[in-house]
Amino acid sequence: MYTLELTKPDGRRMSLYSRAPIDPSLVAPSPAGDAPAGTSHLRWHPLRGEWITYAAHRQNRTFLPPPEYNPLRPTSPGQPPSEVPQGAWDVAVFDNRFPSLGGDAGEPPALIVPTARADGHCEVVVFTQDANASLGSLPLSHVELLLQVWGDRTARLGAREDIRYVLPFENRGAEVGVTLHHPHGQIYAYPVVPPVPARMLALAAQHFAREGCGPLEQHIEAERRDGRRMLYEGEHAVAFVPICARYPYEAWVAPIRACASFNDLGDAERRDLARALKTVLLKYDGLWERPLPYLMAWYQAPTDGAAHPESHLHAELWPPYRTRDRLKYLAGTELAAGFYAMDALPEDKARELQQVDVVLA
Amino acid sequence: MYTLELTKPDGRRMSLYSRAPIDPSLVAPSPAGDAPAGTSHLRWHPLRGEWITYAAHRQNRTFLPPPEYNPLRPTSPGQPPSEVPQGAWDVAVFDNRFPSLGGDAGEPPALIVPTARADGHCEVVVFTQDANASLGSLPLSHVELLLQVWGDRTARLGAREDIRYVLPFENRGAEVGVTLHHPHGQIYAYPVVPPVPARMLALAAQHFAREGCGPLEQHIEAERRDGRRMLYEGEHAVAFVPICARYPYEAWVAPIRACASFNDLGDAERRDLARALKTVLLKYDGLWERPLPYLMAWYQAPTDGAAHPESHLHAELWPPYRTRDRLKYLAGTELAAGFYAMDALPEDKARELQQVDVVLA
Repeated sequence: MYTLELTKPDGRRMSLYSRAPIDPSLVAPSPAGDAPAGTSHLRWHPLRGEWITYAAHRQNRTFLPPPEYNPLRPTSPGQPPSEVPQGAWDVAVFDNRFPSLGGDAGEPPALIVPTARADGHCEVVVFTQDANASLGSLPLSHVELLLQVWGDRTARLGAREDIRYVLPFENRGAEVGVTLHHPHGQIYAYPVVPPVPARMLALAAQHFAREGCGPLEQHIEAERRDGRRMLYEGEHAVAFVPICARYPYEAWVAPIRACASFNDLGDAERRDLARALKTVLLKYDGLWERPLPYLMAWYQAPTDGAAHPESHLHAELWPPYRTRDRLKYLAGTELAAGFYAMDALPEDKARELQQVDVVLA
Repeated sequence: MYTLELTKPDGRRMSLYSRAPIDPSLVAPSPAGDAPAGTSHLRWHPLRGEWITYAAHRQNRTFLPPPEYNPLRPTSPGQPPSEVPQGAWDVAVFDNRFPSLGGDAGEPPALIVPTARADGHCEVVVFTQDANASLGSLPLSHVELLLQVWGDRTARLGAREDIRYVLPFENRGAEVGVTLHHPHGQIYAYPVVPPVPARMLALAAQHFAREGCGPLEQHIEAERRDGRRMLYEGEHAVAFVPICARYPYEAWVAPIRACASFNDLGDAERRDLARALKTVLLKYDGLWERPLPYLMAWYQAPTDGAAHPESHLHAELWPPYRTRDRLKYLAGTELAAGFYAMDALPEDKARELQQVDVVLA
């Protein structure tokens, strides 16, 4: 993995990553002269016991721009500057111009609930220079590089004192609210372990104390023995529709061994994990021969310096469709109660995905 | 409150409610001869520690029917039977034809995760006979009746051995996935206290033990003193945009006194709560002079027979819009991390709603 560190004219940091050496004379562009002043702060929700971040400056962020002004395409002569330079690189990571966390937040206001600085960091990850590609269409070695990039960002961000948890995710498709269609994801680095991973880690730690292994390690063994919902089974990595899917086409992608984080993956594990991920993404897009929207999140260990043997790196992918032309909405029971109601059996949805042939390369 | 108990031809139960006596000769119709056979069961999610309910028969449920076949309009001569009879009644409640919980579920399958019977109950609540009305447009006495109805359902369902929590909610608008536009809500009665209210109740119990009152009682006092986000302030009930709103136009509606459940409301409290609720709904629809979609959920005490001094009945309303023409999507940080990111300050959104004049009647 080759990297080049750059600073944009507005002061934001950018890292380029590539499978081949990168021309060190590349210059980082920026679509605007100044980064908008951050005014974020956190407020405590006294009934739910969680932080909410308020970033009023984000209201003006880029919203489905016309193709000639896609800020994630490489800057080309005669056009307004974009976020990334022309040149030979595979993946670009830069500070979000409209961060929900981090930036220059300043002291929080005194209010009737506890408040805190919106520490942390938000990054944009451009998966490829090709605006018309998709993550699943990239070569395996490119997907593998991205897994390395996520590890590198986790290491760098996790080393910061104000960051406790690093979450790489991709929102894909207008149905999940995506404002830019160029293949990209985001990284949120949080000042606390957020509620969902915090709960999963607490349950995993109980399981580990009781059984000597984490729940996902045990669950992967059970899914493999059962076999009915498997989408990919390699030497080191698996993908499957979980038996407890909360979305009809939900899939999990994980190393078989309980690696706590991206940086615990061995080379062979990372290579196989790329195959597992690409398999799911190609099956998704092959299912109805159109790009399937999804939310993909990668769960890993907190970056608090402690060992987390209970943690098991994995991705959860949640497409918002129930059938080819019907969306699954999260409504009363899901959002208000946290009790998910499913119309379809995971076994049936897994079968649909199993029947989609894919070619890995 | 007058009631009439009926049974539909397919065996489902129906209750009619009215502010005036109801003709006891009314007969309950049903749009289909047989209730579909239920095949629901629960599966345990080993990473999140929660139940998911699977009800494959729900895939065939009614989806945005043409107006001549709105199953919630009163049955009229020469048309296919609907779910409710003609006659003088205000609110109708009947068993959901496609229940996610309850029905005739039978024993759960043995799987690689724990499973359980999908006990519980799902009801449909028709707010009015008028397909073109909305909850906020109904007279105050009608809204007050609905609060009584929710109390009556809570008492009846909560008395069942297999039910631990009763959640009345309304999904309103195509944006939140509503398949029928006739004004109606639903009631889910769960066999367990679901994750979201379970967490809120656990936090409230800690607060009560520490401070001798629940967190919402204290929070309402603080919101009233602050005053900046109030939408309604009556003698017994309030409505406000909470300082920790997770949706731009989020509002909470509550009695000032910490009533644990609908059935702890006194008459004057219920009357004022109806005024608070109607105020919010009229402000919502007045904001952009069009019906604002929202999810409304009513949180109350579990129905486990124990006293719940930590519980404080209240509604939370979550409209999915950020601005007049932009939706707020729940994506990576909200769904995967449980860490909500807001673009707008609650103070600013409250001001927009405060400026909408409403007339209560």
